[in-house]
Amino acid sequence: MADTTQETRPRWWARPDLDYVGTDLHLGGVNLAQAAREAGGPAYFYSGERVLANLRRLQAALGTTGLETRIRYAMKANRYGPLLTYMKASGLCGIDACSPNELRHAVRCGFRPGDVSYTATSVSEADLQVLARNPDTWINCDSLSTIRRLARVSPGRTIGLRVNPALGVGYGENQLLRYSGERTSKFGIYREHYDEALALAKEVGLKVEGIHFHVGCGYLDAQLPAWREVLQSCRWFLDRLENPRIVNLGGGLGLPHVATDTPLDLERWAGVIREAFGGRGVQIWVEPGDFIVKDAGVLVLQVNTVERKRSTTFLGVDGGFNLAMEPVFYKLPCEPVPARLSTNAATAWQAENLRTYTIAGNINEALDIWAENAALPEMVEGDHLVLLNAGGYAAGMSSDHCMRAQATEHLLLP
Amino acid sequence: MADTTQETRPRWWARPDLDYVGTDLHLGGVNLAQAAREAGGPAYFYSGERVLANLRRLQAALGTTGLETRIRYAMKANRYGPLLTYMKASGLCGIDACSPNELRHAVRCGFRPGDVSYTATSVSEADLQVLARNPDTWINCDSLSTIRRLARVSPGRTIGLRVNPALGVGYGENQLLRYSGERTSKFGIYREHYDEALALAKEVGLKVEGIHFHVGCGYLDAQLPAWREVLQSCRWFLDRLENPRIVNLGGGLGLPHVATDTPLDLERWAGVIREAFGGRGVQIWVEPGDFIVKDAGVLVLQVNTVERKRSTTFLGVDGGFNLAMEPVFYKLPCEPVPARLSTNAATAWQAENLRTYTIAGNINEALDIWAENAALPEMVEGDHLVLLNAGGYAAGMSSDHCMRAQATEHLLLP
Repeated sequence: MADTTQETRPRWWARPDLDYVGTDLHLGGVNLAQAAREAGGPAYFYSGERVLANLRRLQAALGTTGLETRIRYAMKANRYGPLLTYMKASGLCGIDACSPNELRHAVRCGFRPGDVSYTATSVSEADLQVLARNPDTWINCDSLSTIRRLARVSPGRTIGLRVNPALGVGYGENQLLRYSGERTSKFGIYREHYDEALALAKEVGLKVEGIHFHVGCGYLDAQLPAWREVLQSCRWFLDRLENPRIVNLGGGLGLPHVATDTPLDLERWAGVIREAFGGRGVQIWVEPGDFIVKDAGVLVLQVNTVERKRSTTFLGVDGGFNLAMEPVFYKLPCEPVPARLSTNAATAWQAENLRTYTIAGNINEALDIWAENAALPEMVEGDHLVLLNAGGYAAGMSSDHCMRAQATEHLLLP
Repeated sequence: MADTTQETRPRWWARPDLDYVGTDLHLGGVNLAQAAREAGGPAYFYSGERVLANLRRLQAALGTTGLETRIRYAMKANRYGPLLTYMKASGLCGIDACSPNELRHAVRCGFRPGDVSYTATSVSEADLQVLARNPDTWINCDSLSTIRRLARVSPGRTIGLRVNPALGVGYGENQLLRYSGERTSKFGIYREHYDEALALAKEVGLKVEGIHFHVGCGYLDAQLPAWREVLQSCRWFLDRLENPRIVNLGGGLGLPHVATDTPLDLERWAGVIREAFGGRGVQIWVEPGDFIVKDAGVLVLQVNTVERKRSTTFLGVDGGFNLAMEPVFYKLPCEPVPARLSTNAATAWQAENLRTYTIAGNINEALDIWAENAALPEMVEGDHLVLLNAGGYAAGMSSDHCMRAQATEHLLLP
């Protein structure tokens, strides 16, 4: 839930594949109001081309490092099968999985087990059995316990270690660096336990040839100095490996959520990588999730109620926070915009034509508010509302709370 | 996520049907470690007898009001089919539904449509079509828009109005009264719109014979003065009805989550109802959810990792916050206790035998922590951990985030 009044940059989110054509919002060439009507209920739409464009942008930036690089898409952001297959067919990425069922699902969608890297925490014996049956899948172990137990079921395997440099970088309110004085995280092997982990791996017969770290979520330009610091500090871990081959930088690359955010400068981002690891003969892997899919997807809901209560005008819509939890729980807004305007977009967004709406979902909880005081062109009951930036961590973590999970997913292709 | 160190009242949660028998925790006569092993993965267990006992306690308290009363269980708290059917067979309650699929599910489990009251927000045309086909279901309308649109598809119907007295009562940190200066809620019809709503209902041919209000979540004794104030203020709404028959008090009754909570005094709670509505010839309906099911249910997870990271000892378990979102998102802890002890319970909980653990789920998010610094008897890898108070708002709002939804539900009956 966020105050989304953004007087200064109306339609800051518009781009060639996401904008109004006449009065109707189009994504990837598709008229969203029409498509939503056909869907007949809450519907997620994903632009395949935008996903590939994001992968290509990232690939191009990685190319400037002069290093061998691989993108492993973090499928927990969005695992819609047709979309995964489309990504596989493009040849642009592999998969980062964090559970046995994610690994299996990726394979069911066409990825080879060798295209998948596996990074998880609190790894169970049942999880390990699945990994043992997939020897080509690269595993990053994030605890000594996992090293010890993996060696029993998958002897001799080559692995990476997820390390914890004890500093982090995050988005917006969470951008404060989290240094070693902070609460200890469940993730990764800390510096003070690293030699023991390497010794244990040797003792149980696993070969450590890579490191993995993940140091934030949704970081943008403002966090690049911290990004640099993290990468520099992680060389310490790499330098202690006998045969260092792979440096996995995790994910966490951010994208704009509100008008005041500016996009991450990928060239600067890649420059930091080149500076830290250039000339070391290692492969660089990255695991972006949101960065690839979030701005490629929207959630379209229908306005069923327009009602003024005291000084607030509510738009009641036919879907709630269970369909996309980030606005409520993580304060990451999904920008609301009308699917269809009564006039052209330039006129509709003139200040004098805007109304102020609070957008309420259909779940019986007070927190189920999509946006407060959003400045929008006028809407009436029956109109469709489009929530932007719903391509990641929306359908994939949706719940059937109040039995309100009835939403469909749609891949839009040229 | 909560700091669950409770040195003062160890095992404050124990009761005859939930305690250790020798070394093993039993719920409703069932050995949870054994049952969890048989379940073969994360498992919720619900004690049917505890659910009925909670219903009977509430029924007894309501009996002291001298009014005709009905309990409508709010199924969004827990909709496990066998449990719903068991409740129906007991004859102790009807159902409060908040979506068409909840209504349908209740009927599939044996309730009659007339046993169900329906209270929802942001009501769509599709929702109304389902309600129109179920004329015996009592509907509480919470907006003028709903009144207007319901009349079109279900003419002449008798309804209730959800009203908003613009003051509220909540649990713990949220216990501050929310008076009219506060943010306007999406729920209910405010006093300043009430006469218009009644006039509209008359105009479109609906008969208003009840009011509904819901003024908090998880309230305990400390909130009873506010509870009294709310009920008194709601008489204003009731007095304006031509034929006032039903006063629906909503849910929100709380139960202890930590050692320092004391149970709600049901007799005092009912006394407030008697004081406000006694002798008025109205029926009193209540819609408890958590109060009926939460302490009847547990979630049993297996410890797969015991590992010290810096000064913190983590217990990694085979389920994460997607299986029970309240600890992470609502700060309502699920008390963790071992399913099996290495000695008897009295000895195991002696201060010198306790360890301090941080309990980490298997989802790749830093917030996925069940409890920090919990004081527990020693646990080793392979042990089962029981999370208490997981009978409500756990399975029913779980998500398949990271494809980690594999948990089973089990109804325990005598």
